[in-house]
Amino acid sequence: MEPKKYIDQNIDRFLEELFELIRVPSISSDGQRKEDMRKAAEVWVKHLLAAGAEKASVFESDGHPVVMGEKILGDEFPTVLVYAHYDVMPVDPLELWDHPPFDPIVKDGRIWARGADDDKGQSFMHAKAFEYVLREGLLKCNVKFLIEGEEEIGSASLPAFIDAHREQLACDVILVSDTGMVKPGQPTITSGLRGLSYWEVEVTGPSRDLHSGLFGGAVANPINVLCKMIAGLTDERNKVTVPGFYNDVRELSSEERRLVNQVPYDEADYKAEVGVKALCGEYGYTTTERTGIRPSFDVCGIWGGFSGEGAKTVLPSKAYAKLSSRLVANQDYVAIGQLLKSHLETHAPDYVDVKVQVLHGGKPYECPIDIPAYQAAARACETVFGKLPVPYKSGGSIPIISTFEEKLGVKSILLGFGLASDAIHSPNENFPLDNFKKGIETIIQFYKEFAK
Amino acid sequence: MEPKKYIDQNIDRFLEELFELIRVPSISSDGQRKEDMRKAAEVWVKHLLAAGAEKASVFESDGHPVVMGEKILGDEFPTVLVYAHYDVMPVDPLELWDHPPFDPIVKDGRIWARGADDDKGQSFMHAKAFEYVLREGLLKCNVKFLIEGEEEIGSASLPAFIDAHREQLACDVILVSDTGMVKPGQPTITSGLRGLSYWEVEVTGPSRDLHSGLFGGAVANPINVLCKMIAGLTDERNKVTVPGFYNDVRELSSEERRLVNQVPYDEADYKAEVGVKALCGEYGYTTTERTGIRPSFDVCGIWGGFSGEGAKTVLPSKAYAKLSSRLVANQDYVAIGQLLKSHLETHAPDYVDVKVQVLHGGKPYECPIDIPAYQAAARACETVFGKLPVPYKSGGSIPIISTFEEKLGVKSILLGFGLASDAIHSPNENFPLDNFKKGIETIIQFYKEFAK
Repeated sequence: MEPKKYIDQNIDRFLEELFELIRVPSISSDGQRKEDMRKAAEVWVKHLLAAGAEKASVFESDGHPVVMGEKILGDEFPTVLVYAHYDVMPVDPLELWDHPPFDPIVKDGRIWARGADDDKGQSFMHAKAFEYVLREGLLKCNVKFLIEGEEEIGSASLPAFIDAHREQLACDVILVSDTGMVKPGQPTITSGLRGLSYWEVEVTGPSRDLHSGLFGGAVANPINVLCKMIAGLTDERNKVTVPGFYNDVRELSSEERRLVNQVPYDEADYKAEVGVKALCGEYGYTTTERTGIRPSFDVCGIWGGFSGEGAKTVLPSKAYAKLSSRLVANQDYVAIGQLLKSHLETHAPDYVDVKVQVLHGGKPYECPIDIPAYQAAARACETVFGKLPVPYKSGGSIPIISTFEEKLGVKSILLGFGLASDAIHSPNENFPLDNFKKGIETIIQFYKEFAK
Repeated sequence: MEPKKYIDQNIDRFLEELFELIRVPSISSDGQRKEDMRKAAEVWVKHLLAAGAEKASVFESDGHPVVMGEKILGDEFPTVLVYAHYDVMPVDPLELWDHPPFDPIVKDGRIWARGADDDKGQSFMHAKAFEYVLREGLLKCNVKFLIEGEEEIGSASLPAFIDAHREQLACDVILVSDTGMVKPGQPTITSGLRGLSYWEVEVTGPSRDLHSGLFGGAVANPINVLCKMIAGLTDERNKVTVPGFYNDVRELSSEERRLVNQVPYDEADYKAEVGVKALCGEYGYTTTERTGIRPSFDVCGIWGGFSGEGAKTVLPSKAYAKLSSRLVANQDYVAIGQLLKSHLETHAPDYVDVKVQVLHGGKPYECPIDIPAYQAAARACETVFGKLPVPYKSGGSIPIISTFEEKLGVKSILLGFGLASDAIHSPNENFPLDNFKKGIETIIQFYKEFAK
């Protein structure tokens, strides 16, 4: 039976099964929900087994339980690992929901519930695509599922879980549906995620706060100095001035840049959304490129001296800032972390003490669009949507994707079907039924294309 | 009788009278001390009358009472107004005092008590010098006293009091002993006080805090922008870059600069005192000049974004700073306030909104060293100490001195005898007996020199 026909014939059952999962209020941040977390995991196991998984069970982790299940054809076949999460965000403020968040309904062509998109709705498409390819005898690759319960709280237990189950998780590619489409009807593969470097800078001037009248003008003010240091880190073209900062940035070909810029973009809308009169970014790049394929430099916080009401005069002893850079392929966050630290400490004028602490870092992620798995996903999209996907470079980070690459040595294909209007993490979360159905169909086509 | 002999003969009585004043715990900031404030004022009245004032009484103000007293010879004589204050600072932490603060003693050649220097000891020298010139029939000018009870809490009620008693306070010069000597044995006249401009800057980027991953690089970060703005306000020679900022700064002659630099200064000591490895200030000026005769630019506070523990990423909506400049003669704080406000607002890039509020301001004060009253004080110092006074340019501000000039149109001679070791505002405040006696003598000589 054609996938579309199978989906249409079974959609009521699919929804009833999905709703069973949605009805479990598996809010991972809520300490009162431990039983619900396990229950959601068990619902997943039931449906994986029903779909045809050879084995599927609930595994313990350092936090909420993890579901793993699989269908293994043999070592000679390539392996796809489906990653998803069964946990959801809290629902406050409850009074803003038009319908109870854990009582799913279909209305106006959309599924309405907490988790309808993120990630119960999107992940369940994988269960149903898996069911189809097994029932139809089409499966030509091994399939493994890894479904965690802590994605919304930072996936803290997952890295250790991966280490402990490295063999069971071995695969050739990871398939994830937890992202979105750049606009309705436009299939999208998130092919880039920025990494991060994060620093805290402490500038010490005099050893104690001084009277700004008696000493002002003769003793360096650490806030003035910190401002100069920060100002000097970018130039008038909004490029980072630290030597070596761009050394490992992969410059995209003009064809790649053309593809990246397919993302719909309206400057007036963008400015209105963030509430600015004008945009500001690295010279020579579009907004889409500035947030997708170029590193950024932001001061996330700054403090020092007097910030109360009125006009207290002081020449403070200390000033602080939290600095961050979003990184892109192939920047190494460890190297960049050290680069800025050493740049600032080395160039500190002798009238202040400068200490820089590298607080945090994360690898950028990039999925080349010419690898077989991406190409398979692209052809699947074309078959279902009638057009090729946009390779979307997201400015944000999904740390676990970099962790997968680091620990399992494989790329992830971020094939998401959410829309901006889905209100994930907000009241009245929803997911268009059409996206749910097209998502299942696209995943089915992916299996067909990936292992012909 | 020679002044010195008179002082030596009467010193025990002088001290007993001063101690009566000191024993009243007239802490102006302490709401429980209202009766003591009045009592201290009454002690002053008693001693002014005893010294020979024609009239002296306690006057009401909007705050603590004010003492006025006078000896008027006639309209044809010049008038000296002595300004002082009878209030003192709190005494906490009491356990650090070696002797109870309001139980004065003389030990090791010093008077030990709260107010021993600031300003009961210093002001009482005026009462006794006044007594001497009257008893000896030497007075050749009118003398008025104005002794307030709110100096340590900002003299809030005094401007209105001056307005209400402008005629009674009319004078040709004001004489004040509430400052110090640059070193023991070196008479000092504080001939300059810096003024102040104080601003609060608010920079708004996006209308709400943004995800630094999704928007970082494309939307201006208000902290980055604020740092650039602040950095741009001074150049590599540490000069303020705002056009017009230095227009009204009086450039001192090389002879004046030589006098100013007589202040003892040891760079190693200075650096050790403030705890820095190197000093930093306007190119072409000494430390003494940088804090005395040149304006400064300090950021007194800065804040924006995230300042908690850890590495929270955010592209904040707003950033703030408190800026201040100490001003020197003849800068107009109103004009400078507007100058920087308009400079920052006019040069704000179009991708942020910049609002600058002028929060506060105060006039710089300068006493020319060639006016008769200064010259009289200088000769008086020379007679008593054997050397001319240093014209000391203080970097701080004493707002009431500018207020006197503004409201009464006269200069103040700041002829102080305190030492750095006097520990004013601290436990174990003290005042060398020798300074007390030489102070009385110098003031007597001033009267002789001022109105020959």
